[in-house]
Amino acid sequence: MSGQVSWQARFESARSNRLFELFIILVIIASALLVGVKTYQLPSWVKPVIDGLDLLITLIFLVEISIRFLGEPQKRAFFRNGWNVFDTLIVLISLIPIDDTDSALVARLVRVFRVLRMVSIIPELRMLLNSLITALPRLGYVAALIFIIFYIYAAAGSLFFERINPALWGNIAVAMLTLFRVMTFEDWTDVMYETMAVYPWSWAFYLTFIFLTTFAFLNMVIGIVVNVLEEEQAKLDTEDPDRTSLANLKDELAEIKTTLRAIEERLDANANDSGQRERPPPNESR
Amino acid sequence: MSGQVSWQARFESARSNRLFELFIILVIIASALLVGVKTYQLPSWVKPVIDGLDLLITLIFLVEISIRFLGEPQKRAFFRNGWNVFDTLIVLISLIPIDDTDSALVARLVRVFRVLRMVSIIPELRMLLNSLITALPRLGYVAALIFIIFYIYAAAGSLFFERINPALWGNIAVAMLTLFRVMTFEDWTDVMYETMAVYPWSWAFYLTFIFLTTFAFLNMVIGIVVNVLEEEQAKLDTEDPDRTSLANLKDELAEIKTTLRAIEERLDANANDSGQRERPPPNESR
Amino acid sequence: MSGQVSWQARFESARSNRLFELFIILVIIASALLVGVKTYQLPSWVKPVIDGLDLLITLIFLVEISIRFLGEPQKRAFFRNGWNVFDTLIVLISLIPIDDTDSALVARLVRVFRVLRMVSIIPELRMLLNSLITALPRLGYVAALIFIIFYIYAAAGSLFFERINPALWGNIAVAMLTLFRVMTFEDWTDVMYETMAVYPWSWAFYLTFIFLTTFAFLNMVIGIVVNVLEEEQAKLDTEDPDRTSLANLKDELAEIKTTLRAIEERLDANANDSGQRERPPPNESR
Amino acid sequence: MSGQVSWQARFESARSNRLFELFIILVIIASALLVGVKTYQLPSWVKPVIDGLDLLITLIFLVEISIRFLGEPQKRAFFRNGWNVFDTLIVLISLIPIDDTDSALVARLVRVFRVLRMVSIIPELRMLLNSLITALPRLGYVAALIFIIFYIYAAAGSLFFERINPALWGNIAVAMLTLFRVMTFEDWTDVMYETMAVYPWSWAFYLTFIFLTTFAFLNMVIGIVVNVLEEEQAKLDTEDPDRTSLANLKDELAEIKTTLRAIEERLDANANDSGQRERPPPNESR
Repeated sequence: MSGQVSWQARFESARSNRLFELFIILVIIASALLVGVKTYQLPSWVKPVIDGLDLLITLIFLVEISIRFLGEPQKRAFFRNGWNVFDTLIVLISLIPIDDTDSALVARLVRVFRVLRMVSIIPELRMLLNSLITALPRLGYVAALIFIIFYIYAAAGSLFFERINPALWGNIAVAMLTLFRVMTFEDWTDVMYETMAVYPWSWAFYLTFIFLTTFAFLNMVIGIVVNVLEEEQAKLDTEDPDRTSLANLKDELAEIKTTLRAIEERLDANANDSGQRERPPPNESR
Repeated sequence: MSGQVSWQARFESARSNRLFELFIILVIIASALLVGVKTYQLPSWVKPVIDGLDLLITLIFLVEISIRFLGEPQKRAFFRNGWNVFDTLIVLISLIPIDDTDSALVARLVRVFRVLRMVSIIPELRMLLNSLITALPRLGYVAALIFIIFYIYAAAGSLFFERINPALWGNIAVAMLTLFRVMTFEDWTDVMYETMAVYPWSWAFYLTFIFLTTFAFLNMVIGIVVNVLEEEQAKLDTEDPDRTSLANLKDELAEIKTTLRAIEERLDANANDSGQRERPPPNESR
Repeated sequence: MSGQVSWQARFESARSNRLFELFIILVIIASALLVGVKTYQLPSWVKPVIDGLDLLITLIFLVEISIRFLGEPQKRAFFRNGWNVFDTLIVLISLIPIDDTDSALVARLVRVFRVLRMVSIIPELRMLLNSLITALPRLGYVAALIFIIFYIYAAAGSLFFERINPALWGNIAVAMLTLFRVMTFEDWTDVMYETMAVYPWSWAFYLTFIFLTTFAFLNMVIGIVVNVLEEEQAKLDTEDPDRTSLANLKDELAEIKTTLRAIEERLDANANDSGQRERPPPNESR
Repeated sequence: MSGQVSWQARFESARSNRLFELFIILVIIASALLVGVKTYQLPSWVKPVIDGLDLLITLIFLVEISIRFLGEPQKRAFFRNGWNVFDTLIVLISLIPIDDTDSALVARLVRVFRVLRMVSIIPELRMLLNSLITALPRLGYVAALIFIIFYIYAAAGSLFFERINPALWGNIAVAMLTLFRVMTFEDWTDVMYETMAVYPWSWAFYLTFIFLTTFAFLNMVIGIVVNVLEEEQAKLDTEDPDRTSLANLKDELAEIKTTLRAIEERLDANANDSGQRERPPPNESR
């Protein structure tokens, strides 16, 4: 039993080893380069070499995942981490032998996704992606509003312009794609001039759409900027011991006031003492 | 009389019911989906189903508006809310029977606008839209300046380039549309190369226009950012009890100074007391 | 002599009259609309009407400028204001009779520039334009750097690509225009694919150019944002009496410390008094 | 030996001479203009004039670099400055005589790079460029993430779309260029419609790519803005003596509290003194 524990500990120390990590990063880079190389027209003798390298990389990844899994003190916690599940899936699907041409495309796509392992292995990239994803919800309502604007304009556009150009306005899905194209200003005047030939006032449709989406998008960006700035400010206020918040200063002032009141009371007491001894009306001293 | 009051109260509690609200949101989503589905080529047997669903949705909306109206304690206040007026209009126009093909387009457009009811029913979206609309006036003068720039360039463009391409520069309205196209960088060099063939120096017209509008637009965006940041700051200063403004600290310091002065006076009085008792020249102690 | 003074005072009060200003704004709007109307194809009987209105507006402007000039206490100060010079020039050139077709274009252009009088008469727009112009110098060095980047890339582009497409790279001026087009992403890939057919590595030319200019432009925008935010902060610190700067608080604290020191000294004096009277070693009390 | 020292000092004073610097700036501007002039079609008699001016400028630069090198107290420190190395290289390569047409292009390119000497001689531009370059590392991880997104999409795009249009998706390098084009919204719908003809769902490929890169780019920009604002804040806190940090205020408050405590103790002592003299239970006064 103690033998198994030592195995686990050995694997745990292996996976947090700096050299082991560096080696895996190099293998991932090699895997990414291989993906890139495969997109070129290659002489026939290169193919077996690439297939061999590919198999080697798959095996290394398999060993690595195994070490990381065996090194995990609590096996269940391993699969609670989304990145571990992702890594395992990528490796397992890579192991499936490719026979026919249909699944070959999927197999090659899986090898493309291996490049994403770069994000899962480098902590800074993982944190960056996490922070990007956690920033998404706060875009929620503005995104919903932009979607409603898109939906209404797409429905109206499909209603009026379908007979002009079905390829652009045939149904609501195609119309939304066309509107996204208009939003990116990509040959949007071609779309507009075409409908203006039938409805001369349709420029208002495009201009109001552009103004609304640009304005909403701008507000979204500004909202993020303000949010980030506030978060940074809050972080600075709590983290940095040198940057005392104004609230702290207020507390200190309250303490000073209490001390002053104590001094005043003492002075009153002293004055009363003297007064009782020497002067009959002691309250007149106030 | 009391029966009527209880009816109104019953409707009032109904319209603020969470389940009732959720049901209406689901109906609005169904109505939005119906609008989308209608833009597709559908088999003939589907049409009566859609028409039936459409009628059902219209009736549900009618009942909902009635409940909300009857549940309103003061009937006049109901129509003071712009969203209520909008909802009522949308429902009433939906009720008009569609006979000929001309009004059919209008009737279908009204059904498209029903999607906007999503904004009127979800408080967060309503607030977001309100905040977007209240942000508009502060753009006022920059927007006016941009419009003047557009107007002057459009008039000058129409004056010089009309004979080159009347479709782009025929009159001031068309010229403004062309300039908006230039501002979005949409095939603007095609417009420029065309006029440069006649006026080789006309690139200056386009470049100064692009610089002016970009610069004014940039200033508008920066103005909004600064405005929003300041408002957020002001909100934080007033709302958050932990964030004491510097002004508060100043008040506290003033209080402390008053207390200190009182202590000083008392000490003077004490000193005078002692002096009067024991020492002839009391002011020499200072 | 006093008669002349009263005339000047009368004119001065006239030009600061709210109604007079409103009337002039309406005349400027009418003049702007006239400029717009003239760009349309008009029936022949309208032309004399427009010419008459044009003359009327010119005369009203002449009277207005005269009133403002005569109302000025110091005649020299009138022409020190750039806007006054601009207004006077616009009116004087409008007075020149149009004979031949060549100067007709210039005369019509001057009428277009009359719309700018809107900026000169509305104080808010004048201030906005001034603030935009004063913001320009701080862009100075970044603008110079961007110009140097443009110049070097244009010279290199002209050197290598001239024989490929002289219309785009014929000389350094044309090449700079082409690069500006690339910077606005306007059909830039057409330009790139053309040169890549001869120099396959020329994509590096375009990509480095886009990265450099985008990065420099971004820095310019960020620089402006930071500048504006700081200025606003500084303005708030000085203008708003409620927002006491930390420096003020420090001064107050220094005052409090002085008072405390005075109290301490007085206490020492009191203690010495008591000590001299009753206790031989007064310093032991410390 | 002392003669050589005086020579070096004379050169050192020369190179920091304001007039000498101004003269060199004018020569650099002349050199830049010459580069521009050479891109135009010129009459044959101008060529020898330009060649002469070119030689003159090269000689002036040679003399200038020599003076700056000889004026350097420590010769080794001269080449530690990157700008000095750049200047020397540019001048030395300019000195190589141009014989055949192949190296002529390189020689002309070197003359183009002379314009960069403007940056090396004007301190403000040099500082600006340095600040731009030092800002690059903090973009590091976001740039890496954007590159990974590009790489994965390019590999997938090359995998699926190669047979549709090899010119756009032939290999991973070409596919990345195509994706950069999509990111700049340059005729991206042409690329999309082409692949949508084969894979109708491929719009998801483009839209997710645009959302991901736009979102990552936005985060990069916001990150820079926040960084710059914080740096400016930190600079203000340390540089400006008027802007006392809250930490300083806290220190002052601590001092005041110490003083108050001392006063309290003294008052206690006084009270005890009086109490010892007159009242038997002194602690009851509290």
